[in-house]
Amino acid sequence: MTQRRITPVILSGGSGTRLWPLSVPDRPKQLLALAGEQTMLQATAARVADRARFAAPVIVGSERHAAQIEEQIAAAGLSCGTLILEPAARNTAPAIALAALAADPGDLLLVMPSDHLIRRPEPFLDAVFAASQWAAEDWLFTFGIRPDRPETGFGYIQRGEQIGSGVFQAAAFVEKPALARAEAYVASGSYDWNAGIFLFRAGAYLAQLGRFEPRILGAASAAMGKARRDGRLLYPAAEEFAASPSRSIDHAVMEKASRIAVTPVDIGWSDVGSWDALFEIGTAGGEHASGSGQVVAIDAENCLLRADGITLAAVGVQDLVIIATQEAVLVIPRGQTQRVREAVEMLEKRRP
Amino acid sequence: MTQRRITPVILSGGSGTRLWPLSVPDRPKQLLALAGEQTMLQATAARVADRARFAAPVIVGSERHAAQIEEQIAAAGLSCGTLILEPAARNTAPAIALAALAADPGDLLLVMPSDHLIRRPEPFLDAVFAASQWAAEDWLFTFGIRPDRPETGFGYIQRGEQIGSGVFQAAAFVEKPALARAEAYVASGSYDWNAGIFLFRAGAYLAQLGRFEPRILGAASAAMGKARRDGRLLYPAAEEFAASPSRSIDHAVMEKASRIAVTPVDIGWSDVGSWDALFEIGTAGGEHASGSGQVVAIDAENCLLRADGITLAAVGVQDLVIIATQEAVLVIPRGQTQRVREAVEMLEKRRP
Repeated sequence: MTQRRITPVILSGGSGTRLWPLSVPDRPKQLLALAGEQTMLQATAARVADRARFAAPVIVGSERHAAQIEEQIAAAGLSCGTLILEPAARNTAPAIALAALAADPGDLLLVMPSDHLIRRPEPFLDAVFAASQWAAEDWLFTFGIRPDRPETGFGYIQRGEQIGSGVFQAAAFVEKPALARAEAYVASGSYDWNAGIFLFRAGAYLAQLGRFEPRILGAASAAMGKARRDGRLLYPAAEEFAASPSRSIDHAVMEKASRIAVTPVDIGWSDVGSWDALFEIGTAGGEHASGSGQVVAIDAENCLLRADGITLAAVGVQDLVIIATQEAVLVIPRGQTQRVREAVEMLEKRRP
Repeated sequence: MTQRRITPVILSGGSGTRLWPLSVPDRPKQLLALAGEQTMLQATAARVADRARFAAPVIVGSERHAAQIEEQIAAAGLSCGTLILEPAARNTAPAIALAALAADPGDLLLVMPSDHLIRRPEPFLDAVFAASQWAAEDWLFTFGIRPDRPETGFGYIQRGEQIGSGVFQAAAFVEKPALARAEAYVASGSYDWNAGIFLFRAGAYLAQLGRFEPRILGAASAAMGKARRDGRLLYPAAEEFAASPSRSIDHAVMEKASRIAVTPVDIGWSDVGSWDALFEIGTAGGEHASGSGQVVAIDAENCLLRADGITLAAVGVQDLVIIATQEAVLVIPRGQTQRVREAVEMLEKRRP
């Protein structure tokens, strides 16, 4: 049979604050250039830009960011297919359902977060194409990242029976574990990080979703049935979509379905989930001062310095993360950058 | 005889960068609110606002800051006499000559920097009035600050023969000494810091200036002879003033003249010459976070945090000075804040 092109589905609904003050609700992580010239969204779309092998990507995002998404895709010389604008945030299972409902049931969908880094795209693409034969046979296929530390911020996938070359049936999906369990997973050698990248037939996903989460499928179907289209923009009906439970794909489908496959990949992946993670990425590239503003570093050792639209001078400091924008400045030691949440919460509390 | 009112002469020509990024050429230290609600200039003028004892102050400043000076004086509900706008910066001896030439020779002038802090104004004013009898007899009178550390950034005055209650003939004026000499001065107990505050008859100053620095007196006289007046603003002639040598009053007159008196005063003085100095002042008031912006401090110990027109979050940091404006951010450890100069120089070099 002729291999269908794969349709990338890029999930751009995130609005986290872990990279505050650079990421803010109007300018979330995926719309920022964190590692290099391209924004995370641009880099994600560029990774699947070979139109001989991929259809134009479907992007699922928030109406709030529609203009920025379109501008960024155009500015990078890329194209996109439908831009599905979620009327409300309902986590990944409903978001992916919208994209699957917009596709033909036989279409192969490559679901990807828009805000992760993949430094080695070639082995990633090789793994995707190798996986497409499994997906064509109605496996829900995932890509596991070999853990190098007992990270408690990620989900884990336990490899089960080997069913092909480098391909395993997934024995279990585990949500973010406590540290002791994470350490045991890493020590066992049979768990991989769940990077949130999936390959499956649209129809296969919808079938499993309907089996385990019929209310999600029902809400997404109703919202798409009344959707309004404006060029490439697709607006699912708000009231219908809002009726969906809010669930991740892991929780809604992956933890429950049986025909799940996982292949471990070594692709230079990072979720860029904290300023510490960005420091580690910078170490690889040797670059710790960035941004559109001026950075003056004098005897600043092992610091991550970033200034956008503002001047930053760091003198005689060690092991600090300093992020400066025209709105706000963060100064926090390396190794503590998850505490940015405390600062964001305090600012939100103070808001009148 | 009837005691004449004293005419304050406020020197506002400074344009230092030691408090960068808050102080910049367009907004030098004296125009900033560093310790409390008032700017340093406002606090200086407010200190001598009792019109029963002081005439309206003469302010000598730069044309660049004329509007800000007038606004600040008015905003504080104060008044000022003549605002003399130096056509060029020629240090204090020529600046004071302009003010002395604008006065009657018999007027008592109280010369003060505009950017120093005096936390106990009452003993300061008492000392000034006690000194006025000496100044009326053509002594050039100075006020010495008892040193509490071997500061190398200040000039020192050696006390000589006692000539009155708490009043000494000045034996020597010494420019900023090396550390070993500064330590010896402090140990000797007979040296005071030169705070740059003077009281003398206008005619007495001009006489000594003419004796030791006739070119300065000649240039200042020529500039005032051709000065242009616009309401309270006085513009000395630029070409004539530019011909003056650039000299401090210490170097031009105080180190050379014989009839110099000094009285040590305990007035809570600080030149606020660095962010470290401002931290020390803040310790007294218990306040280390300031500015018009929002400051969020979480586990920030012994830090000086200031944000103007921007939000600053400092989490888990110790002994840092963090100053954020809408233009620039400085992060530097306490005890090293004199190194701000290195950052300013590097930025100036980079300027196209």
